[in-house]
Amino acid sequence: MASMKAHTEYLTFNTSKRYEMVHITDQVERIVRQSGVIDGLCFVSPMHITAAIYVNDHENGLIEDIGTWLEKLAPSWPGYKHHQTGEDNADAHLKALLLHHETTLPITRGRLDLGQWQRIFYAEFDGQRSKRVIVKILGVSAE
Amino acid sequence: MASMKAHTEYLTFNTSKRYEMVHITDQVERIVRQSGVIDGLCFVSPMHITAAIYVNDHENGLIEDIGTWLEKLAPSWPGYKHHQTGEDNADAHLKALLLHHETTLPITRGRLDLGQWQRIFYAEFDGQRSKRVIVKILGVSAE
Amino acid sequence: MASMKAHTEYLTFNTSKRYEMVHITDQVERIVRQSGVIDGLCFVSPMHITAAIYVNDHENGLIEDIGTWLEKLAPSWPGYKHHQTGEDNADAHLKALLLHHETTLPITRGRLDLGQWQRIFYAEFDGQRSKRVIVKILGVSAE
Repeated sequence: MASMKAHTEYLTFNTSKRYEMVHITDQVERIVRQSGVIDGLCFVSPMHITAAIYVNDHENGLIEDIGTWLEKLAPSWPGYKHHQTGEDNADAHLKALLLHHETTLPITRGRLDLGQWQRIFYAEFDGQRSKRVIVKILGVSAE
Repeated sequence: MASMKAHTEYLTFNTSKRYEMVHITDQVERIVRQSGVIDGLCFVSPMHITAAIYVNDHENGLIEDIGTWLEKLAPSWPGYKHHQTGEDNADAHLKALLLHHETTLPITRGRLDLGQWQRIFYAEFDGQRSKRVIVKILGVSAE
Repeated sequence: MASMKAHTEYLTFNTSKRYEMVHITDQVERIVRQSGVIDGLCFVSPMHITAAIYVNDHENGLIEDIGTWLEKLAPSWPGYKHHQTGEDNADAHLKALLLHHETTLPITRGRLDLGQWQRIFYAEFDGQRSKRVIVKILGVSAE
């Protein structure tokens, strides 16, 4: 008989660059398979306020375009009020807000139910330090 | 006794224009009723990377304002790096990122639990082709 | 034995200013504890189209930066088409779209599973009236 299940894992990232887009579809897919959930939702979110998760194309030109676009709409700039606290990363907070800090993904027949070109990215805007991403799966289990 | 249920349907859109906002509240509401879920969450997402789902007002002036605003913040422009692959739709990817590619909606007493003016839209930024939207419902069933 | 549970509450806000960021982490956390759900997802969303929910830093300088940034990207302006209906709040709709109107949060061991600096905010862009926020929790209950 089908039963309900929740499954949680934490991923850790420590990017070599301050700004970096990390492709994580394979890691999330692996967690989905290990969860035993066959029909449900997969929630993915950084546990930080200067990073985001987004779903889009795994194409290097577009990834560069996204970075340029985020810098135009939410530029690095010394004059932010937040910097009066000693921080220098207000732009990272704004970039994370723009992409949204979390995403939900569908699971069908035990796999991520994504379109052909949908790939999951961890978007780091203040890296070069250890940061965590939570993956929480909720749904119907086969057992 | 209450039990847990997941229910999935796919909608198909083929817009006549490249950019188009399609009102889909009635279609999503129909799927919610057919699911048998009385309390839970309804996930809605295009399975494509050049379209989005958003919730806002069903008012033609505002819909036009949203289109103008998206074009200002994420303009169509030949110079994107992504276009070196032969594509011409980088702006569609950026517009989709801006509105976020998915949304979740609450279900209470077997209906979408939306405010008076909250309406669901499929936002197409590279249409004139067949595209799919997944609706996945997870929650407590009456049966 | 673990069982599945859904729990719903509605919060009401009536801000004294038109634009206001209201810190609501404690209120959401209280609902999570009352729900009895120990592992699952917490969905939070205004039931209005001129407000949003976002997760970021509880630091006054940054909150001011976010307001200034939203005004720059989605400015108050008399010329929006939406205003031909007699409304004057098209910018509030655009600001709400930019921050996204809903968010989902993870629940682990009966608590919101947030990072150290992640705080939840109700972002009001057309206040000075009574508005509702739905909090819906779905997950595994201890009972």
